[in-house]
This record gives sequence, structure tokens and C-alpha cells, in this order.
Amino acid sequence: MAQYPYIMKDMPVLLHGGDYNPEQWIREKDVIWKQDMEMAVEAGINTLSVGIFAWSMLEPKEGQYDFSWLDEVMEMLAKNGIKAVLATPSGARPPWMAEKYPEVLRVDEKGNRHLFGGRHNHCLTSPVYREKVRAINTLLAQRYKNHPALGLWHVSNEYGGECHCELCQQKFREWLKARYGTIDKLNDDWWNTFWAHRYTSFEEIHSPSPLGENTSHGLKLAWKRFTTQQFIDFYEWEIAPLKEITPDIPCTANLMHIYDGIDYFTFAKHLDVVSWDNYPFWTGDARDRDVVLLSAFKHDLMRGTGGQKPFMLMESSPSAPNWQPINRLRRPGVLMLQGLQAVAHGSDTVQYFQFRKSRGSSEKFHGAVISHDCSKENRIYKEVCDVGEALKTLAPVTGSGTENRIALIYDWENKWILEDAQFGRNEGGKGYTETVLSHYSALLQDHFGVDVIDENGDLSPYSMVCGPMTYMLRDGFAEKVEAFVQNGGVYVATYVSSWVNEEDLCFMGGFPGPLRKVFGLWDEETDALDDTQHNAFTWNGKTYKAKDFCALVHAEGAKVLSEYEENFYASYPALTENAYGEGTCYYIAARTDEDFLMDFYKTAAQKAGVVPNIPASENGVLTTKRIGENGTFLFVMNSLPEEKEAELPEGFELLSGKTIKGETKLSPYQVLVLKI
Amino acid sequence: MAQYPYIMKDMPVLLHGGDYNPEQWIREKDVIWKQDMEMAVEAGINTLSVGIFAWSMLEPKEGQYDFSWLDEVMEMLAKNGIKAVLATPSGARPPWMAEKYPEVLRVDEKGNRHLFGGRHNHCLTSPVYREKVRAINTLLAQRYKNHPALGLWHVSNEYGGECHCELCQQKFREWLKARYGTIDKLNDDWWNTFWAHRYTSFEEIHSPSPLGENTSHGLKLAWKRFTTQQFIDFYEWEIAPLKEITPDIPCTANLMHIYDGIDYFTFAKHLDVVSWDNYPFWTGDARDRDVVLLSAFKHDLMRGTGGQKPFMLMESSPSAPNWQPINRLRRPGVLMLQGLQAVAHGSDTVQYFQFRKSRGSSEKFHGAVISHDCSKENRIYKEVCDVGEALKTLAPVTGSGTENRIALIYDWENKWILEDAQFGRNEGGKGYTETVLSHYSALLQDHFGVDVIDENGDLSPYSMVCGPMTYMLRDGFAEKVEAFVQNGGVYVATYVSSWVNEEDLCFMGGFPGPLRKVFGLWDEETDALDDTQHNAFTWNGKTYKAKDFCALVHAEGAKVLSEYEENFYASYPALTENAYGEGTCYYIAARTDEDFLMDFYKTAAQKAGVVPNIPASENGVLTTKRIGENGTFLFVMNSLPEEKEAELPEGFELLSGKTIKGETKLSPYQVLVLKI
Amino acid sequence: MAQYPYIMKDMPVLLHGGDYNPEQWIREKDVIWKQDMEMAVEAGINTLSVGIFAWSMLEPKEGQYDFSWLDEVMEMLAKNGIKAVLATPSGARPPWMAEKYPEVLRVDEKGNRHLFGGRHNHCLTSPVYREKVRAINTLLAQRYKNHPALGLWHVSNEYGGECHCELCQQKFREWLKARYGTIDKLNDDWWNTFWAHRYTSFEEIHSPSPLGENTSHGLKLAWKRFTTQQFIDFYEWEIAPLKEITPDIPCTANLMHIYDGIDYFTFAKHLDVVSWDNYPFWTGDARDRDVVLLSAFKHDLMRGTGGQKPFMLMESSPSAPNWQPINRLRRPGVLMLQGLQAVAHGSDTVQYFQFRKSRGSSEKFHGAVISHDCSKENRIYKEVCDVGEALKTLAPVTGSGTENRIALIYDWENKWILEDAQFGRNEGGKGYTETVLSHYSALLQDHFGVDVIDENGDLSPYSMVCGPMTYMLRDGFAEKVEAFVQNGGVYVATYVSSWVNEEDLCFMGGFPGPLRKVFGLWDEETDALDDTQHNAFTWNGKTYKAKDFCALVHAEGAKVLSEYEENFYASYPALTENAYGEGTCYYIAARTDEDFLMDFYKTAAQKAGVVPNIPASENGVLTTKRIGENGTFLFVMNSLPEEKEAELPEGFELLSGKTIKGETKLSPYQVLVLKI
Repeated sequence: MAQYPYIMKDMPVLLHGGDYNPEQWIREKDVIWKQDMEMAVEAGINTLSVGIFAWSMLEPKEGQYDFSWLDEVMEMLAKNGIKAVLATPSGARPPWMAEKYPEVLRVDEKGNRHLFGGRHNHCLTSPVYREKVRAINTLLAQRYKNHPALGLWHVSNEYGGECHCELCQQKFREWLKARYGTIDKLNDDWWNTFWAHRYTSFEEIHSPSPLGENTSHGLKLAWKRFTTQQFIDFYEWEIAPLKEITPDIPCTANLMHIYDGIDYFTFAKHLDVVSWDNYPFWTGDARDRDVVLLSAFKHDLMRGTGGQKPFMLMESSPSAPNWQPINRLRRPGVLMLQGLQAVAHGSDTVQYFQFRKSRGSSEKFHGAVISHDCSKENRIYKEVCDVGEALKTLAPVTGSGTENRIALIYDWENKWILEDAQFGRNEGGKGYTETVLSHYSALLQDHFGVDVIDENGDLSPYSMVCGPMTYMLRDGFAEKVEAFVQNGGVYVATYVSSWVNEEDLCFMGGFPGPLRKVFGLWDEETDALDDTQHNAFTWNGKTYKAKDFCALVHAEGAKVLSEYEENFYASYPALTENAYGEGTCYYIAARTDEDFLMDFYKTAAQKAGVVPNIPASENGVLTTKRIGENGTFLFVMNSLPEEKEAELPEGFELLSGKTIKGETKLSPYQVLVLKI
Repeated sequence: MAQYPYIMKDMPVLLHGGDYNPEQWIREKDVIWKQDMEMAVEAGINTLSVGIFAWSMLEPKEGQYDFSWLDEVMEMLAKNGIKAVLATPSGARPPWMAEKYPEVLRVDEKGNRHLFGGRHNHCLTSPVYREKVRAINTLLAQRYKNHPALGLWHVSNEYGGECHCELCQQKFREWLKARYGTIDKLNDDWWNTFWAHRYTSFEEIHSPSPLGENTSHGLKLAWKRFTTQQFIDFYEWEIAPLKEITPDIPCTANLMHIYDGIDYFTFAKHLDVVSWDNYPFWTGDARDRDVVLLSAFKHDLMRGTGGQKPFMLMESSPSAPNWQPINRLRRPGVLMLQGLQAVAHGSDTVQYFQFRKSRGSSEKFHGAVISHDCSKENRIYKEVCDVGEALKTLAPVTGSGTENRIALIYDWENKWILEDAQFGRNEGGKGYTETVLSHYSALLQDHFGVDVIDENGDLSPYSMVCGPMTYMLRDGFAEKVEAFVQNGGVYVATYVSSWVNEEDLCFMGGFPGPLRKVFGLWDEETDALDDTQHNAFTWNGKTYKAKDFCALVHAEGAKVLSEYEENFYASYPALTENAYGEGTCYYIAARTDEDFLMDFYKTAAQKAGVVPNIPASENGVLTTKRIGENGTFLFVMNSLPEEKEAELPEGFELLSGKTIKGETKLSPYQVLVLKI
Repeated sequence: MAQYPYIMKDMPVLLHGGDYNPEQWIREKDVIWKQDMEMAVEAGINTLSVGIFAWSMLEPKEGQYDFSWLDEVMEMLAKNGIKAVLATPSGARPPWMAEKYPEVLRVDEKGNRHLFGGRHNHCLTSPVYREKVRAINTLLAQRYKNHPALGLWHVSNEYGGECHCELCQQKFREWLKARYGTIDKLNDDWWNTFWAHRYTSFEEIHSPSPLGENTSHGLKLAWKRFTTQQFIDFYEWEIAPLKEITPDIPCTANLMHIYDGIDYFTFAKHLDVVSWDNYPFWTGDARDRDVVLLSAFKHDLMRGTGGQKPFMLMESSPSAPNWQPINRLRRPGVLMLQGLQAVAHGSDTVQYFQFRKSRGSSEKFHGAVISHDCSKENRIYKEVCDVGEALKTLAPVTGSGTENRIALIYDWENKWILEDAQFGRNEGGKGYTETVLSHYSALLQDHFGVDVIDENGDLSPYSMVCGPMTYMLRDGFAEKVEAFVQNGGVYVATYVSSWVNEEDLCFMGGFPGPLRKVFGLWDEETDALDDTQHNAFTWNGKTYKAKDFCALVHAEGAKVLSEYEENFYASYPALTENAYGEGTCYYIAARTDEDFLMDFYKTAAQKAGVVPNIPASENGVLTTKRIGENGTFLFVMNSLPEEKEAELPEGFELLSGKTIKGETKLSPYQVLVLKI
């Protein structure tokens, strides 16, 4: 039973709120701010994020600060019992800074220094930019350190991107020197004898560029590792004054789920609490099942980066956003599902972007709690009020944890180097994320709770670990897998696993290299099929499709559970099971459809001794559990716009206040929360 | 009854001709020029455009002018009774100018100064370029001011594009200062507090760039407005010497129908006569109906930019052009239809690009009156001769006008800001032009004549005004609509109307803002559907499809004529009618197919008291009317490669010289011109 | 009967080998090199290409050379009876050179100087680069001139690309001066009066650029011609020391079949032996028929560039490569077919890229003789051994030639200028290569041997010459065609033929210009059809589809064999036959499917007196003949993964050692080699 501290001190409730930009309405504050507060309170909002992108209002000219409006806002929030999620303004710098100090602007991979514009586009190495950020962060912390409204630091916004300026190049070279020591070591690890690429000094190295080196996997992987370190370094720079002046206020930076540019498992270790922004592409039709599965995966992934502790849903859209290819309205009930699904997977907050639609510029039509009509009659506003009510009811859930026995591996570095690799299916990519997601979806639909970890994660708490397409083995991972299986764990491996080491050098002597004994097989070749081609295999009397990748392996001790049925490798193993030590390693030789994975994981979990949350349900009903001091909470969610049935254990349903048991109907998109 | 002056003095006939580049054949002029004249005269050609792109022949080296060949050409034209449409050569500058003065070359949006090449790519701000243009235009006007062949000035060619050089940036900033006065006013109008974008001075502003600011709608709209002003300014600069030296010769610049880069309604006010270039994508099959409808819309749009006066078809291809994705041959009869359709919609000319195919370079395979075979046996040449004959027969039409009672709004600024907006369907764009076109097509197929105007246009002459997707209201437009309906007019509005003001700031307090009373409803939300999704509504017993955009509105006085039948907004209004003052406002809440619009406009026009040109016809037959001193001319056009029937009023058919009445057969692509 | 010298002196056998990079394994040479030699010998490998991309190991720092490892490798090869295909290392320069002399890096068409990276990207004009190449080539030749292992010079690798730096611009201008003499001549030939493009001096000319001139066909054609000359010039520079020091060692540069950037017919005249790299996109299913046909065409094309002499297959992948969109495994037997097909079409070698997979970097998963498992049990290795055996058996084929009576024209300059032209179908291109390939495929499937030549080729050895889409006539080609037909040859022409001269100036007075009498028709217009449209024509009782391009021609003496059946040009000729002198010219007016071409060529070949290799076979069986001192060898190849039958002449099948005759079964992908 895991019970965690509340995210904000003295707030033993689920947080409800959103991004709030009162500074945009300063000329009409008497009307607008007043309305804001009234509607916020009525909607059960207890937190608002302020100061994001406010730099040009906080420091309208260099060195001329104006905190008067923010003082007023903080006061107003305090008066209304609302906590501030106070942002550092580094997400967007004012035009005057770009004009005076062009070095704060990024240089792109083609060497072009950019012009002022947009946001999230500063050189993180620039001493000028760092100095300006340090100064304003310090002033903010000093000014509001004792303010009763201050609840959390929201550091910058959605860190991302990269800069290729000369300052960054130099920092990259220093990072390389620190990692590799000598240029010869780097040349060997990157296999630079190939194509006459041996450098004679670190000074010859330049970041990857379409105008220069763009094929060296070693260089590209190093650049991505460096970029993650750049963000950690900058984040630490940002929070130094905050930590010094307000040591008790937690800091976060809002993440973007599967964003490719940062290894979030590494980055998130530096956050006090993980927070992230969720923007599902709701369809309003049968495709919403997949929308909900994808959100589930992202929630579990984000929780994983924070070590399975409760996290924050920092942004979500109360209505259609404005930037998706097709921005559909959310059907009634979807807002509730969207919010409570976050809680179901471990969030202690439901925050929106944005509280009020701006009147102009590029996000004015992005969904908000308050629309341009400023009306309480607005459908969205009314649904937000309903969510506010529900969250109050669910207060006992706050701080509870999860206790899952299955871990699924999703590893940023493996993704980078696997997707960058040239082999098999290049067209459309290797499909790493989609593959991990397909395993996740099968497990969740089988009603197993899943923890997502990376190769650096601890395997020992789990009964089963699934590692689809772990092409690259980080140092020490093979040893962990071996020990895990040795000690009785069930490990699930697939095609394209264990081919290269942490520097992307192939294992010599036959794949899967160091895991050959654990898998009990030799992986000789891998076929790639195009979208018109497939193979087949039969298991437990059912025939499944093999597609995309088919490994041609030879059992070396493993028991062959099923064989391919077509092509020249008919009779080669398609599925094997290897007893190793006290445990078992399964190997799925080909990519399959969801039907196989759902059937397979029922068997594999049984072997691992893991039981599902509920015995049965119609397709589209998903479940999770949170467990804490106040009990065990079973969340049951209908992901579809139609009625569904599920077989539930007995429990007290918190939202309706009724006891429920057995065969139960869920209305479209309905969420039930059973205390069991 | 509107009768206008002839485009060229003493030319009371429809003009027939095309772009002519005799300078390309100067080494063979004895043979080629002679042949040119003989074949032109035989084809009934009475005008030829000369001097376009002739700069390197007129000023082969800086300051060394050579008009001798042009003297000879002008003389030759005069001798053959052909008027010259004499061009200023600014459409393409000679290499020597780019070499010596790089400032005449454009800088693109990424800041790259271009090299010499192509055409239509000069910096319009460059003092050097302006000086060179002024000098050569002055010399041309002085030399040919009294020449009997001089009929019209063809200023430059197809103005377009934009330059981002430092000179243009500075001019842009001056334009911004003039428009906004203070930087604070600009910051407020562009809602620059968003993303910390408040400028401290105009000097910080840079034109939109993918390397800089590319999301601010205010900046992008301003840049487009400025660009239109740049072209007006440059055009005025070009014509100043022409107007001074040859005050009686009209000036034009050939436009490109729906070209996005210039607000033609604003630009065309500076032209003596509107001229434009029409290049339909003929298919030779059933798709030609839509080809003809699109040309019809463009003709009416271009006529509208000139205040409904007769205009010039300045370019059209006698045969397949060479630049379309698929350049099909035109079936027999298409050339006649292409030319007479222009006349039907108000053109007093049929001009071609080009008179003779060049022997080399990039347009040598573009359709021409004379092909490389130089043969009078060539099919195209013979069809051109037929058109020449027809135009002679139709001389009485010259100068006649149109008298339409329905106006359709197509507004460049609305298009810019709507298509740039982020909401609903971003993928594939908002479909503004396609939507206006669908309304136009429905009206034309219902046999109603249509005037196309923009929001600055006068509504008072009309009985019905249709304003599809008028997302942005220019200053004063709401008042005009209100007065129009108040005074008995029928106004047709749609989804996504009246959301923002002229600066793209949303109307607060509920859409459609200032038109809420006129529409009689509140527009709460708008759903966006993808291409696989749709809704439905039933009206007068027929069920129609709703797609793409579905507004969720609440009637506030309007009578609900039909409701949605699906999704959670089933029972919300899909079509409403609001009595306001003496008039009526219809509101179509969703995008529909053509079938609905054709049915709807029959009803709406009846309400407005407007009757169609002919009672009935098979699909594909279109009609227009021109009315002048010589009578009323009904044009009846078969847009398809198959026989069609139409029910016609009694009239004298000019082309056949026969009287026609009632049920009438039209052969493939046939045009009838009835004097009624 | 043609018998040629062996490629390597004293090697009267087919060569078998591949690219070998022992320098990548220098730290483990004791194990790896030893294994390499053992497995090479066992696989019947008698040649290995070394030194490609070895520059950074040969000259680790500027001027510091290290040949010690290569000495060792050469020694090892000699000891194992393996000949070295010794490379000059210019395919990739070391980083230190780019760092110190940026001029060795290319400037792209937008004017950006590139950074270090990749390979094959040096400025060929750069004096520094030339000096460095000359120095190292000289040292290599001096060091190994008497080495017993030295068999052939492999000059650089896959020359390609282009540089737009100022040095190259200047060289281009000099080339233009040499070609055109005066700027006026150039202006006239490029038709520069169009769009005011007349240059006043050569200094104003810049290479084609998307930022500058990109529409002038004359400029673009000149640039491509110049680029071919650049490669010739550089190649000659590279081989000068080799030729001086080792005059008896032949030199080659590996070509890339239909690579667009170099006119290989012109370039290959400078090679002692043609070599090329073949990477079929094997599918493992019915599409493999087309894969094999395409390879066949490329082999015949490459043989053609070398004047029909035996050539070298320099690279091919023993297994799936790693860079194709989908890299499928090769089914058993495919490797044998891939290798023997090369021999069938005139190759005296089967070489692979690569001998051993590298452990890291971007080609580590490219197919190789030795995989990362280093295992002789590996399927691929075993198949390579089989090929080695087969090649030994086929030693008598070495040096034999081909004796084909049909020539097919494929002309790089025609391709460049035709594909660049603007007319008809621009979308998807004109389809020149696909069209030539379709004629080739029909001929090969009819079992006719084909020589591929360009317009500069000699027509006189042939009985039939096919010239599909010879849009541009090089100087002298019309005269050759006329003489060929006059003297009894059968010439096959198609739509879009003989429109422009060598400078892309249209023939005046009616197409096909100078060939109007030979074709016996006037080509008035050409229709372009989109993919949904087609026409039809009937010949010998069978109806065929006409598509894409339909020429509208008028017979002027030619006999009309078939007419179009649809559209306004129904009854225009679709196929004509013109008796001219002693010969015949066929004209195919429209693009057709393969079925027509196969039927047509049976008739046309009969007219030309050419008989097929075998009387009949099922679809998918292909044949070629090689003829030499040791006899005539009929290669019969099953291109499909299924059993096929063919009617064969009597012969001794070399691979099985059995005599075969008549109806014969071929297993999937099987190759038979009959001595007949």
C-alpha cells in the first residue's frame, strides 16, 4: 500500500485548475478578472497557473520590472482560496532581448540564426539568456516567497528543441570529451574508420546537420544524449534561486509524454513532481477506444518517469483544441472521462489549458473553461463544473499509489538508436513506440495494471517484464534480465532484440548476444515484409498473422510453441518459451496483431501468477487501480460513445454514492470509481 | 440598362488577339513576321500585346536603348489594322541589371537574396529598380505617344510575390506606423501580451518568416495588407509617366483571378480597365462542368473588382498549355466556349497567350495561335479563325453591362485571416474559396446572375446578398448588413461567420457578435468533422448531408427550418430564417453538398423576388445575360462534351442567324447567343 | 564470335569477391583477418576490393602516411591467391582535410558550403583536393606497382553529385565559352530573348539554382553536360599517376546504372573496363519478374556503355541491403540468380558489397558474405559458397561476348532535356526511362537479345533499332536513322519523337522535323491523358489500350495499321508502317501496355529477320546468349518463386552437367546455362 505526500502542502484534495493569463486583460481587469474569479470558484477550481509567457509584462524593458499586476493577481487568488502554480517566464522572451542580444536566439541544424518569434526557442547555452532568466526567477522567488497563494513552481513551459550555435557546439565537444576521454575512444565507439571518419581532435566534431554529417549513428545518439543533459543543466540553473529562496515549494516542468527530444526518464529525476500535458485526438466514434488506450499509456509512462509516484495532469483541453488537424468537439461526458482517466492512472490533478480563451493571436480558439461568450450557460463551462464536483468527491484518492506486478519497457535511447538504424523496414520507421503501445494495449485490455520503466529501471519488484524491440542493451541491462529470469521472473522478448550495445556496436558471435542463453535461441536473420505481405502461425488452435518483421531463429534450448507457416522459413519458430533458472523467457519472433498479444498475455501472466483487475467486460471497458491509506479504488472506464457492460467486484461507487456489484452497465464514456 | 465606353477608342468591337513576341524572331523576321501578319489578319485578330519581357532587347546594355525593332513592329501592326497592347517591360529585368545592382533582386522570407533568373521577382522598394523602370516607361511613352497602333498600356505582367529585404522591412515598418500610430496600439490589436510578444518599438518588427515569427495572425495579416499596398504603390509609379505623356490611353495590369497575394478589389480600383488571365484545367470529360463553373466564378469575380464594368480576357490558351500537371488537348468547340464564356460574363476581349510558340526555352510548348508547324492547316489555328468570325458577329454586345440582383461576397482579407486561423479543420484548410464557389455554382446552376463583391462593396443595389463564412467583419460591414436586411433585403449567412473584427480580435459576449440580432441566434460552438464523418438534416421533405463544419446554435428569435439528426447536437438548428425589419436573414449552420444549396437558393431567391434567366435545362447548361444599348443578350452554354437540352425564351441567335424558342438542343460545348 | 581479353591478366575465370575493409578490424586483426581469409577461400573468392574509404587510415594526419596495415593486407591476399581490386581513397576524405581546407567541401545549389560528413561530396575543381588525391594515388601506385596481389584499380567510388562553388562556376563559364564561342551564340541557342534573359557576358551566368535561374532548359542542359565533363576530367586526373606507374593495370570506376547525374555513355569511354553496382529490390513474390527485367535492362545498358565488352558486377548484396525502403530477405536461390544473371548479360565478375558486415555505423546491417555471427553455418554464407562453385563451373564463359541484332536507344541527354521539358504530362514526369524499359522488357520477354546504345551509337550492325521517345535529336542522328532505314533497317519510333535539336530548339515546319519523310507522317498535336483516361486501338484483331500520350498524326505516305477508336481523334492513326528505301519505319502513336509491345515486336522482328533465342516459355522465363571461343552459352532464368516451363534447344547444362532438350521445368529462381 503506497501513500504519498500531497503535491501542495495542506491541500489533501485533487487539484483542479488551469493556465491563467490575466495580464492579457489588464485594460479590462475590473470586468474580466472579477468574472474570472466568480466562475473559477463556482467550477470548483482551486489552482491556477500564472505567469507563463508573462515576461514582456514583467520586464517590459530591459531591467525595468513591473510586478504590480502580478501582485494584484496573487492577492486575488489568495482571497478566493486558489493556489498559484507560479511560472518562471522563460518559455518566451520579449522582443527587446532578441533585438539587443541575438545570441539568445537559436541556430538551427543548417546553421541559420533564427529571428525573433514564436516561443520555446532560446539558446540554452547563451550566458546572456541564462543571466536574464536567473535574474527574473530570483526576483519572482524573493517577491512571492511568503505569499499565501504560492503553491508550486511551474518552471518554464514544455522544454524542447535544440540549438546548434557555436556556443552549443563547444559545450557539446566538452560533453564528448567528458564521456569518451580520448578521440581514439570516440572514433572506435562510433566505428569511424568506416567512410574515413576518424577525427583527429574533438574540435573537428560538429553537431548532426543535413549540410554535414547526418549518417553517423554514434554522433546522432551522442547529440541526443547531450541535448537531454542540456535541458537538465538549464532546468537546474532555473531552479537554483527557487530552491534557495523557497526550499519548501516543489518545482516541476511540464512534460510532453512521448516527445522525442528528451529522455524523460533521465530528465524527470530532477523534478519534485512530474507534470505533463495531455491532448487526446478525440474522434467521437469507435476510434475513441484507441484514443483512450493511448492516453492510458502516456499516463503510465509519465508516472513511470516519476518513479510511480502521483503526478500532475498539468494541461488538457476543456473542449476542442485549435491545433490538431481536425479539432472535433468533445461529446458530453468526454471531459469527465478525460479528467478522471488521469486520476485513475495516478494523477492528483486535473488542470486545463486554458482557463480563458484569449481574444487574439494564435490560440484564441483553443478550448478553455471560459469562452468568448463569457457565459455560465456555455456547455463546456457546465461540464467543467461537473468535473469540479467529481474531484471533490474523489478527494480520498489523493496521494494513493499503484501496485502493479507487470513492467513494460519503453526506453528513449533505444527508441532513438533503433528508429535511426538502417535495416528491415525503413519506410515508415521501425515502429518502436507503436509496438510498445500494442503490448501495453493488450495488457490493459486484459485488465492488467502496468508500470512503464526504461532499461535503467529496477526489474526486481515485478513478476513479469515485457521488453519489445529492445534493440540496444544499455550497460547492465542484460545482467538484470538474466538475474530477473534466474530468480523466477517471466520475461517477454521479441524480434529485433539485443543486437547492439550502448554505443550501437553489434554483438559479435550471434544475436541476441549476451541474452542468447536467456532467450534460448540464435537469431540468424530478420525478414522485413511490406504492407501487402504477411506470414502466419498457429498457437492453441488459433491462427495469427505475422507481419512487418519476422525473425528467423533457431531454438537452442527453447521450446518451440509455434512455427511459421509460409515462405522459405515455414517451420522456423514463431513463438518460443525458454525455462531459465527459476523463470521463463518468451520470445515472439514476429510482429503480430492485437488479437495475438491479448491471448498471449493471458497465458504469460498466468505463468507469472498475475491476476486481472476484473474478470470480464465488453471491448472498450478499461480498468485501473489506485491503492492508498483510504483504501483501494477501482476505476472502470467506458472508452466508447455507446453503452457497455462489465462484470465488477462489489464496491461503493463514489460518484453516485451507490454500492455496485456484478454485471453492470456503463453509459457512453462513463467512469465508475469503486472503493473495494 | 448599362452601356459602357469601348475599351479602346474607336474600336466598337470585341477585341481579339494575344501576346506577341516578334523580338524572338528578329534574325528571321523577313519570313516569320510576314507570316505572322498574314495569319493574324486571316484569324480576325485586331490586337496584339507587344513588349512584354522585351527589356533585354530594348536596353541590351545599361543606358543603351534600341527601339528600332519595336518601331518596325508598331509600324507593321498599324499597317495591318492591328492595335498594340503595349507593355512596360518590368516583368523581367535583364541579367546585367541583377549583376550590377543586386538590390533589384528579391530577398525571400528566410532572408536569402536571390540570384538572377526567372521573372516577376524584383524588389519593388529598390530605388534603382524604380529608377530603371521609370526611365524605360518614359521613353516608351514618349516614343509611341502619337503612334496610331497604340491602343492600351499593359503594365508589367502578372504582379505577384513579395520581397523581405531590409528596404522592404523598413517600408513595412513605416506602413505599420501609419496604420497603428503607436506601438502600444499595435501590441493591443495584435494581442501581443500573448507569448510575451509586446514590442517596445516598430524597429523590432520583422516580416513573417519561418525562421522567426510565423504564428502571429496580426503580423501576417498586416504583411499581406502591406504587400497589396506595395503593388498599388509600384503600379502608380509605373503609370505616372504613361498618364502624363499619354493621358488618353487606358492602363491595365493583368490579374490572376483568385491569386492569394494581392487584394484585387483594392488593387483594381487603380486600373482603368480590369484584365485577367484564364487558364482552365479542361478535362474533356464530365469534369468539364466544374471547369466551366470555376471559370464563370472567376470571370464574375474579376468583373466585380472592376465595379461590374466590361473587362478584358487578357490571356487564355488556344490549346493545351504547358505548365499544368496534365496538359490535355482541348476538344473541338472548347476554344469557342472558352472565349465566348468570357464575353458572356462581361469581357469585351478574347486574348491569347500566345500568338506564336517560341522556338526555345520554357514556354515553347504552351498553346498558341501559330504552332511550330507555321501551318494554316493546324486544327488550333482554324478554330482561332472560327472564334474571330464569331466575335465579329457579336460586335453589338461590346460595351454592354450586367444587371444582377444577387451579390455574393468574396473577400481577400477574410480569406487570408480565415485560412490562417487555427481551429476546426486545419488539415486541408478552412475551404473558404471552395465554399464561396459552391454557393456561386448553386446560384449559377439555378440560372441566377451573380455579382461578386467584397465586404467593402455596396449592398444596396441587390435584393439578396450571400456571405458564406464571413469570419472577419471589416469595419462597417455589420452595419451595412443590418441596414440591408432592415430595408427588406435577404441575407444568407453560414457557420463560422462574424467571429472577429478587422484586427482579428474575437467578438466578446457571444458570436455572431454585432450580427446576433440580425441572425437571430447565438453561435455557441462549432464541431469539425473529418472526411469520414457527417451529420444530416431534413428540409421540405428531403434529407441533406451536413459535413466538415457544424455550428451549434441556439435560436434567439429565428425560426428553425430544420434540425440536425445525429450526434449529441441532434435537435440543434441546422437551418434558420430570421425576420428582421423588412427583410430576412437565413443561417445555414453546416457545410452541405451542392444539392442543398441549389434547392435552398431557389427558395431564398423567391423570397427576395429574383427570377431565373431560363426556366429549366439539363445539368451542365449555364446562362448569363448582358444588357446594353443594342439589347439584351442571353448566353446559353453547354459545359459538357455531350448533347444537352434547355428550355429557352424566344430570341434571335446571333451565331447561327436563326430565331430560336423553347426546347432546344445544344451540341457538345455549344454556345448560343440570343438577342431577346 | 566475340572473344575478349580477361579483365585481370592471367585470370581466365569469372571473378568472385567483394568490398573488404580489414582496416575496421585492425584492433582484432589476429582473429578477424584470419577468419576472413579462411572463409573467403572456402567460398571460392578470388578477388577483394580494398582501400575504399580508407583515407583516414592511410593518411591519419596531413602528410603522415601509414601503409603498414595495407602492406599486411596485400601480403595476406597474395598468400591466399586473392587478387586486390585496389581503390583510390577519394570517395571520402578525412575530417582534418575539411577542417583545414573548407574549399574541398561542396557548395550546394542554394549556395551553402557544406560541413564535413558523409562521403562522395568533394569539390572536383578544388586545387587542394586535387593535389591531395594526386599525392595519395601516386604513393599507392608506387608502393604496390609490383605487388603480386594488384589486379585492378578501383578509382574512387560511385562518382556523383555536383558542386556550385565559385571555382566550379568559373570552370562552368570556361566550358560554356569553349562550347558556344560568343555570348550571342549562347543567347540564341538558349532562346534567351524569352523573358529578357539575354546575357551580356559569360560572367553573368550562374549554375541552375532554385534561388536563381531554374527554368532555362538551355542552361540546365549545359550544366548537366558540363557536370559529366567534370567527372571525366577528375577521373583522368585520378588515373594519370596510375597509368604512368602501372600502365598494365586496368582502371575502372563503379557506375550506378541509370544514375541521372552523369552521361555514362560519354563517361565510360574513359574506363578500361566498365563496372557497376546492382541492388535489385527483390520482393520474394510475383513482382520479382519485374525486378529481374529491370536488372536485365541495367546490365545491358552498362554493357552498352562499354561498347558491348564484358563488364564487372562490382557490387551486389549477398542478402538484404539496409537502405531500401523495405529490405526483404532474399529467398534461397535468389543469390545465385542475381549473380548468374549478371554473367548472362556479359559480366565476367560477381562481386559483393560487402565481404564482412562492419560492427558499427550506418552500413552495419547491409548484407555481407560474413555476418556478425562470423558463422559458416549462416545461410547467406552457404549460398555464397554455392555461387563460388557455380562460377568455377562457368569459367569457359569468361571473355565471351554477345551478338545481338536489335538495338534499343537510351540516351542520357535526351532523358535530361525530355524530363525537364514542360508539356503534356508534367505530373509524375514524362516517363522516358519507364518507356524505354517497357520496350526492352517486351523484347526480352519475346526472347530477343538487345544491345542498348545512345544516339551517338553506331546503328549499322543492327537489323532493328528502337528509339522510343527520342524527343531530342543529337547532331547527326537523323542522318544515321535515315541511312539505316534506307539501307534496309527496321526503325521503331513513337509519340514525342524528333521535336527538338541538340540545343532544345524546336524543329520548324512540322514535327518530326528532319525525320518526317522517314516516318512518313506529320505529328500535329499530342494529347495528354490523366491516369483515369484512355483510348483504344485494334490491330490484328486484338484491341489495345492507349494511355498517357496520344500523338495526333497525319499519314504522309505511311500505311495506317490501326486507328484510335475514341475521342475527337478517333480515326487518326495509332500505328503506322512506312516503307522507306530498303527498310521500314514503324510509328507507335500512343503509349501502350506491355501486351501490345510484345505482340508488336514479334511482327517487327520478323520484318527485320531476327529470330528469338527459344521458341516459347511460360511468363517469367528469360534468356540471353553469350558467344565466345568456347562456344555459345544460352542462359535460361526463372525470375519467379514458382516452377516454370520452357521449350529449350538441345544443350549441355553446365551447372548440372547434364544434357537437356525440349520442354524443361525450372524450379523457383533457377538458372540453367546450356552450351549449345
